[in-house]
Amino acid sequence: DYSKLDKLIIGVCGGDGIGPMITGMAQHALEVLLADKVKAGKVEFRVIDGLTIERRAELGCAIPPDVMEELKKCHVILKGPTTTPRKGDPWPNVESANVAMRKGLDLFANVRPVKVPELGIDWTFYRENTEGGYAVGSQGVQIDDDLFIDFTVATSQGCERIARLAFDYARKTGKNRVSCVTKANIIKTTDGKFLDTCQKVAKEYPEVQFDDWYIDIMTAKLLDDKRRRDFKVVVLPNLYGDIITDEAAEIQGGVGTAGSANIGKRYAMFEAIHGSAPRMVQEGRAKYADPSSVLRAAVMLLEHIGEIELAKKLDRALDICMVEERKVVVTGRDTGATAQEFTDYVLDTIAKL
Amino acid sequence: DYSKLDKLIIGVCGGDGIGPMITGMAQHALEVLLADKVKAGKVEFRVIDGLTIERRAELGCAIPPDVMEELKKCHVILKGPTTTPRKGDPWPNVESANVAMRKGLDLFANVRPVKVPELGIDWTFYRENTEGGYAVGSQGVQIDDDLFIDFTVATSQGCERIARLAFDYARKTGKNRVSCVTKANIIKTTDGKFLDTCQKVAKEYPEVQFDDWYIDIMTAKLLDDKRRRDFKVVVLPNLYGDIITDEAAEIQGGVGTAGSANIGKRYAMFEAIHGSAPRMVQEGRAKYADPSSVLRAAVMLLEHIGEIELAKKLDRALDICMVEERKVVVTGRDTGATAQEFTDYVLDTIAKL
Ligand SMILES: CC(C)[C@H](C(=O)O)[C@@H](O)C(=O)O
Ligand SMILES: CC(C)[C@H](C(=O)O)[C@@H](O)C(=O)O
Repeated sequence: DYSKLDKLIIGVCGGDGIGPMITGMAQHALEVLLADKVKAGKVEFRVIDGLTIERRAELGCAIPPDVMEELKKCHVILKGPTTTPRKGDPWPNVESANVAMRKGLDLFANVRPVKVPELGIDWTFYRENTEGGYAVGSQGVQIDDDLFIDFTVATSQGCERIARLAFDYARKTGKNRVSCVTKANIIKTTDGKFLDTCQKVAKEYPEVQFDDWYIDIMTAKLLDDKRRRDFKVVVLPNLYGDIITDEAAEIQGGVGTAGSANIGKRYAMFEAIHGSAPRMVQEGRAKYADPSSVLRAAVMLLEHIGEIELAKKLDRALDICMVEERKVVVTGRDTGATAQEFTDYVLDTIAKL
Repeated sequence: DYSKLDKLIIGVCGGDGIGPMITGMAQHALEVLLADKVKAGKVEFRVIDGLTIERRAELGCAIPPDVMEELKKCHVILKGPTTTPRKGDPWPNVESANVAMRKGLDLFANVRPVKVPELGIDWTFYRENTEGGYAVGSQGVQIDDDLFIDFTVATSQGCERIARLAFDYARKTGKNRVSCVTKANIIKTTDGKFLDTCQKVAKEYPEVQFDDWYIDIMTAKLLDDKRRRDFKVVVLPNLYGDIITDEAAEIQGGVGTAGSANIGKRYAMFEAIHGSAPRMVQEGRAKYADPSSVLRAAVMLLEHIGEIELAKKLDRALDICMVEERKVVVTGRDTGATAQEFTDYVLDTIAKL
């Protein structure tokens, strides 16, 4: 319960590429919305530098130790996209900072809401965030030049805590349905365990409907206008959550429009779901980057710290700026508004709500 | 080269639920189209019974040995959907017959075309069909009650042969682009090998453009009207192929509209990509099942055995019956035409082409 804290510390970690700029926009919006509490010393924003691909490459680690230390001093974190090196890039092969932060702070739930009011879509994805194909990172096994193996992992505790969180959310919000998505017909041991656990937990929530789907057909169902409105809360292992939330975000208007909350018992981190867009920076178009994803993440941050009214306002303003007025103002990507102009427009809209 | 055979044997394996009926429709269509050759004894259809969930359950195996033996006497196989038992079903846990047949006949490439002419979409997916998360089937590992592990496998040979097949197809058809889809930033050992291999093979096909994508963002790109026309041939590991081809099929009109070819060095099997729809059978609606997916599979079978003109005709007739006349005749699912009526309409349409 954050309201009992003397001071709530919000860490701001800009990341790479367009990250620092768009994260700065979200920080600005939060500072405006939380101005009273900032002034009263109840909320502090703390910018954490040094989570850049250059430093990570130099130190050969996913997250520099000093950054990790600073992160752990915060209560909640707002994070911009970070670059994950890939073959051909100038950096050595350091692990994804996202994944390292999720594991390092034990942020076991990745919560991603997707709404398209015009289509009656109101989905909340509960993606398991520390296990599955992500648990063992780069530590697969190669045998001679011929055989390559990766591991997928599930633990009882890991499956249970994400299932409970999803059902608790369904109960709390009165969303009356949880859908579990796996490929338990093939990936029988881990996905089987995940599905079993969800089925078991479902029995404790008799007021919440439960059903389960295979990931392949689920990607089709999300496009089926006759069925997709029925989905409410979707709970799924790490990799499927990664895959399907990008599809879902595209239905909402693009991966640039969706925010993401990474929740653990002790920490919580809020981030855009898109990448760091190095090309935009190279081409000098960084200031036109669309800040809506990280602004949606800021909505989730506000909700998480108990600022429900402010969260609703920011969310509503984003709905207005992104959907209703899409044709006239729209996001930077479409009309050439800068991130700054878009953010100002959002804040103006809030002022008029 | 099938034209050198004295007699081409086409095995027909009905499967479960609506399978025997819709597969029968496709057999009927093929018999009409190949009537001359059947009469001349150059083509024989051989119905293979016994690939039913009841028998598989009784024998406790994915494919009864006598069925496997019969299958191996055929040159090509037309297969209906088979039921894969899941928890709560009355059957014991026998392996998926699809997966067992793909492995047993070494059908290493799963080729799935998706076309939406109105949208300029003309995709062909080359899904690796014997490795990945499917290679080791149910043989994950459980350690105590706490830890569950599954394996993902890639071999050099496995990656190389699917990559070559995709590039050969791109070269042969003049489709000028192959896109590789993995999650090599996370599943580094196996997906890394898959991507490496595609990059290496790409060098031998300088006239074909090559690019690569992560599976999460790819599910979004397929929905992006500005970008998706650019995709032509897509090559990907087993699980991602499974997932994304259902999404793609839905864009085409539903998983009931897409066919699938399972190609190996020695055998080839053609199937619908949807399931056996036991509910339709229970509710007495089986005769209304949509046969278009298995008819599309029949198109691929004709193409594969060198009957290019007949393949084109059947394909064109399906396009007409499914798309242009969707509003008046349409598939069984939409207007209450039976599978038989729909198939007859397709054959009438061919006669008028
Ligand atoms: C950048 C990448 C490691 C990450 C993931 O796969 O989880 C991203 O796609 C996401 O969804 O947050
Ligand atoms: C039935 C199932 C085992 C199969 C698969 O996962 O490959 C199906 O979804 C498919 O795509 O053919």
